[in-house]
Amino acid sequence: MPEHTSDVVVIGGGLIGLAIAWQLATDGVQVTVCDPTPGAQTSVVAAGMLAPVTEVEYGEDDLLALNLAGVAAWPDFAARLEDATGLSAGLHQTGTLSVAYDVDDAAELRRLAEYQRGLGLAVEVLSGREARKREPLLATGVTGGVWVPGDHSVDNRQAVTALLRAVEVSGVTLLRQSVDHVITSGTTAIGVQLADGSAVHAGQVIAATGPWSAQLKGVPPELRAPVRPVKGEVLRLRVPEAYRPALNHTVRATARGFSVYLVPRPGGELVVGATSNELGYDTRVLAGGVFALLRDARTVLPVTDELELVETIAGLRPATPDNAPILGPSGLDGLLWATGHYRNGVLLTPVTAAVIAETVRTGVLPDLGKPFLRSRFGQF
Amino acid sequence: MPEHTSDVVVIGGGLIGLAIAWQLATDGVQVTVCDPTPGAQTSVVAAGMLAPVTEVEYGEDDLLALNLAGVAAWPDFAARLEDATGLSAGLHQTGTLSVAYDVDDAAELRRLAEYQRGLGLAVEVLSGREARKREPLLATGVTGGVWVPGDHSVDNRQAVTALLRAVEVSGVTLLRQSVDHVITSGTTAIGVQLADGSAVHAGQVIAATGPWSAQLKGVPPELRAPVRPVKGEVLRLRVPEAYRPALNHTVRATARGFSVYLVPRPGGELVVGATSNELGYDTRVLAGGVFALLRDARTVLPVTDELELVETIAGLRPATPDNAPILGPSGLDGLLWATGHYRNGVLLTPVTAAVIAETVRTGVLPDLGKPFLRSRFGQF
Repeated sequence: MPEHTSDVVVIGGGLIGLAIAWQLATDGVQVTVCDPTPGAQTSVVAAGMLAPVTEVEYGEDDLLALNLAGVAAWPDFAARLEDATGLSAGLHQTGTLSVAYDVDDAAELRRLAEYQRGLGLAVEVLSGREARKREPLLATGVTGGVWVPGDHSVDNRQAVTALLRAVEVSGVTLLRQSVDHVITSGTTAIGVQLADGSAVHAGQVIAATGPWSAQLKGVPPELRAPVRPVKGEVLRLRVPEAYRPALNHTVRATARGFSVYLVPRPGGELVVGATSNELGYDTRVLAGGVFALLRDARTVLPVTDELELVETIAGLRPATPDNAPILGPSGLDGLLWATGHYRNGVLLTPVTAAVIAETVRTGVLPDLGKPFLRSRFGQF
Repeated sequence: MPEHTSDVVVIGGGLIGLAIAWQLATDGVQVTVCDPTPGAQTSVVAAGMLAPVTEVEYGEDDLLALNLAGVAAWPDFAARLEDATGLSAGLHQTGTLSVAYDVDDAAELRRLAEYQRGLGLAVEVLSGREARKREPLLATGVTGGVWVPGDHSVDNRQAVTALLRAVEVSGVTLLRQSVDHVITSGTTAIGVQLADGSAVHAGQVIAATGPWSAQLKGVPPELRAPVRPVKGEVLRLRVPEAYRPALNHTVRATARGFSVYLVPRPGGELVVGATSNELGYDTRVLAGGVFALLRDARTVLPVTDELELVETIAGLRPATPDNAPILGPSGLDGLLWATGHYRNGVLLTPVTAAVIAETVRTGVLPDLGKPFLRSRFGQF
């Protein structure tokens, strides 16, 4: 069987793996990425919200710091990606409007705004009327809102396309194959064996394996990454000319206790997400998921009924026990994790690439990454 | 430009046009069918209910007689089609259960059952419990039902596939082109001119042009067929093994005043339909249509939420002012209509083919077709 060698081999060609490979290649490192269908899994299903503030959860301070670094890193990352490829990276700096539908929804939104303000985050509480002034097609039943000027969005499909081009032009070797297992020598990872039996030997193995991380063979069981797949269904709607742009900003809504988000794209696409179910690796789009998304979207944006439903799709979020990613040293020499980004994969793509590339270059995980070591979960 | 000649040319290769062509070909007539995308329009979108009784409307007695002839003709038609092709014609003789959700729905259903009984139709009024005995997965909220043993369904996609094969093996010439106009000589239709400029000359032209009938060029304006497109959205769900068959019979439901039907296929498919909108030739699937179908389906069949949504599609019903088809002589010698089947295209395929073929053979429209002449609408 043929053998390849490379300075670094990256397992997984989603947004995270591709961005790491591109960053390393521009640093002069020889990189191979292995993925049977690069960019075609979770990365194309995502809606691409950059929402560290809107989606902040009580008590996740380290993750908030990383997420804020993520949104801060996007403009430069997008500019470099566009320079390198001539393609749009898909960044849309629109701000985000959180809205509440009924009075319970509004009370919850106000509590969250207080918490956000207490953390020093930029938020502005709006009345229902003020919210509709920013987004005139919102339902008259919308009772209040919070304007979050720093939360944006990325057209993840444009980002994937640009990154695939970027790795190509930067000289990354892309092998369209599954990795069967990590090859080890003693307690050191020295490469990967592919599904066809061939091997890639490398001084550094990076597992950007997303929802499949816990199944990565060759990693000793006690060091496996505790990542589980959380299915999400997403709809793509097309706004007819007569109703464009329908929305000007990302809208995050709570409607009768249910969460829904609507992310407009400049071309007239409106992405609606997302359900959340733990059903293993099942990516079937279920009628109940589509129903719930349409119900909640049309509650806050009645014109939803008049939009074309062009796509229903489901993907798998890589979730961890504390909802934060797993970055850096694995306990196995030569193997770094870059996984478990859960709902923040698009947001954290630039910062993860920077953190992992620096770790490869210096041998030391930068401070920003330290709270996210695999070792925080102990051994299994 | 090349010229073809044929005994008969059929404009339109949907179920109606294909069945007419096949019937004529088996009668020894030389037939050409012209359609750029045979079988790929309304015929693939339909759900395929054979529901003359379930869907009877007050005061449409002539149409009821034709529809009953339609359902009666299907078993023999299916058997002949299967003999000719070795393919399934898709006929499923399951009976149909009409159910009502709330008390208003139930009152309406009982009124309809009285009317059906008064017409001598076979119906059996059921309690909610009796309805659930026939279909155990129906919602406990279902308050009553009517069992209609003679209303069945056809997998219209299987029927299309079989008819395409049948015309092929019976020697029909299928030209995958649009008809630009009917060629006339004086007041006689003598063929059709195709989009590429070539012509098909024929002693008999049959317009099986469905929702596009009113636009058929070459027909004098005062003789045009008053057919308008009525858009319908349909969903196709997949029932996982664990829940099969989900339904045993076609279920027609009224849920809080909204109508929905659910047609099970033996392979685990469940067809849910249909919306009804007059939006010209627009066949976009709108979010509001999908929402309404899912809402009503899950109201009467809660397990809908757990089924995979595999397809959303919209098609155009060819509607006429009185909801009945337009059959036979057109007022233009040599041109017969076989159009305007509205919601009954699948149901009326065999009987329309028989009526039109007999008209071609004898020069006289059989009695069953007489109430459906174009001339009943007067001139324009």
